[in-house]
Amino acid sequence: MAEQQKPVGGGSLLIAWQLKDKKVLIVGGGEVGAQRIDSLLTTDANIDLVSPSAGLHLRTKKFLEQYPSRITHFDQSFSFPDTQQTAASIDVGAYDMVLTALDDTALSRKIVQACRSIRVPVNAADIPDLCDFYFGGQVRDGPLQIMISTNGNGPRIAALIKDRVKGALTGKEGEALIKVGLLRTKLKERAPGVGGDVGKRRMRWMSRVCEQWSLEDLSHLDEEAMEKLLDEGWERNEVPTPPEVSKESRSWSWVEVFKSNATRSLPSAASFAAGIVFAQFIFSVWRGKK
Amino acid sequence: MAEQQKPVGGGSLLIAWQLKDKKVLIVGGGEVGAQRIDSLLTTDANIDLVSPSAGLHLRTKKFLEQYPSRITHFDQSFSFPDTQQTAASIDVGAYDMVLTALDDTALSRKIVQACRSIRVPVNAADIPDLCDFYFGGQVRDGPLQIMISTNGNGPRIAALIKDRVKGALTGKEGEALIKVGLLRTKLKERAPGVGGDVGKRRMRWMSRVCEQWSLEDLSHLDEEAMEKLLDEGWERNEVPTPPEVSKESRSWSWVEVFKSNATRSLPSAASFAAGIVFAQFIFSVWRGKK
Repeated sequence: MAEQQKPVGGGSLLIAWQLKDKKVLIVGGGEVGAQRIDSLLTTDANIDLVSPSAGLHLRTKKFLEQYPSRITHFDQSFSFPDTQQTAASIDVGAYDMVLTALDDTALSRKIVQACRSIRVPVNAADIPDLCDFYFGGQVRDGPLQIMISTNGNGPRIAALIKDRVKGALTGKEGEALIKVGLLRTKLKERAPGVGGDVGKRRMRWMSRVCEQWSLEDLSHLDEEAMEKLLDEGWERNEVPTPPEVSKESRSWSWVEVFKSNATRSLPSAASFAAGIVFAQFIFSVWRGKK
Repeated sequence: MAEQQKPVGGGSLLIAWQLKDKKVLIVGGGEVGAQRIDSLLTTDANIDLVSPSAGLHLRTKKFLEQYPSRITHFDQSFSFPDTQQTAASIDVGAYDMVLTALDDTALSRKIVQACRSIRVPVNAADIPDLCDFYFGGQVRDGPLQIMISTNGNGPRIAALIKDRVKGALTGKEGEALIKVGLLRTKLKERAPGVGGDVGKRRMRWMSRVCEQWSLEDLSHLDEEAMEKLLDEGWERNEVPTPPEVSKESRSWSWVEVFKSNATRSLPSAASFAAGIVFAQFIFSVWRGKK
């Protein structure tokens, strides 16, 4: 049988790394260091930044001011435990992940070697062969995170694709996901138990709600509507429609539908008008000829 | 200063893990095991699958048949090195990543503990607190990979968003990225050297090409057009237009533009026709009244 029935290989394993309460070391606080801090603020990691103050980028400084409880700044150059230096030594083994953002390639290489010898995941900015993982373009809307990776084939095109992906979202995805999470929590309080029949029934009902309700409708769920949805839906093993659980649902629905469709409807409306004008023109030519 | 100027935390670090020539262990060859194999075939990892033949999913069996050089199957249950069992023991320390896809939660937990004690990245399917990382919805087109993660908030909605992201792509992104990669390789052969002025000039010129050419045009670049682009573009520090480097570019362009715009143009065309019909109708009513 052919080994290549579909294109395989050549790619990366795209994963969502968990850093809640983990310790991450960033070495270097320049422009790239600031980007790394930005990526890590998305997570619940504790960040240690090793960088002399003189080398801090403006964005890095702002992050340090804004998130003092998230980032600890060590105003010094990186120094290994086995070297005799005045600055405090840094033990990469104390971290769950290490990111270097340095101009000094030789130092980056040494840090990566130290990390790899004890299997600490490591990324050295701009040195692909020293990276256990790469970063990519990121889109975030609350609990929704999207990553775009071109596997190093074109940063410009990645930016273009990122814009296209952003444009494909309605802006309601994050809110809808938050509301679905809340609804699931309420449902678990009402029908507790891990796994088994109740767990399966909960999962099935939640899936039906997510299938039958639009993202738009889900994002508008409030406390009252959730309770009604559970009372009239879950308890009777049904899925009421959005207007059935919210008195106001119809009114906002139309406004939102108009707003979200405006960009798509406008070209059609313009074409419709153009059709009228065109017919008028033909008609007037025809009348003129008569 | 306020600690929460923008919503932070609660998310994951989305990364593209590099597995070229790395060893990955999958324990369990059921439905989820097959999904894991699928994800790993995207990379250039060497996969070891530990699972008794009786428990293999149909998809897993197909993968084993299709990719014998990529996957080594150990027809046995998992057994630790320190246990006295008949099956060969498995040393998780021999792997760069371990994925369990087992119904046996207790065994999964033991495997995860063994991995964590020596910092081998590990994911246990369906047991979030035993995962160093999560998987998410994936879209791939050649070198382009997109991951959609809802951080566990809604698999149904994730599928919906995945469809929307897919819909936002033209289907030319992968091909365009491949062609840009080839063009960059050709350029490096023509103007070799790492870093420095030539490196910067190369990067600038490639960026200009990617900015001024559409994805569509980039995806159609052939050998001849690339050479012409380098001769007439790079050598003169200019960026020729697509028709300038390809005789045929105009003809295919129109066909492709029509094809790719058909879905967007049709509603407008229909509206235009509706406008004509509407005007005709008004006109005939008006004539009838006269």
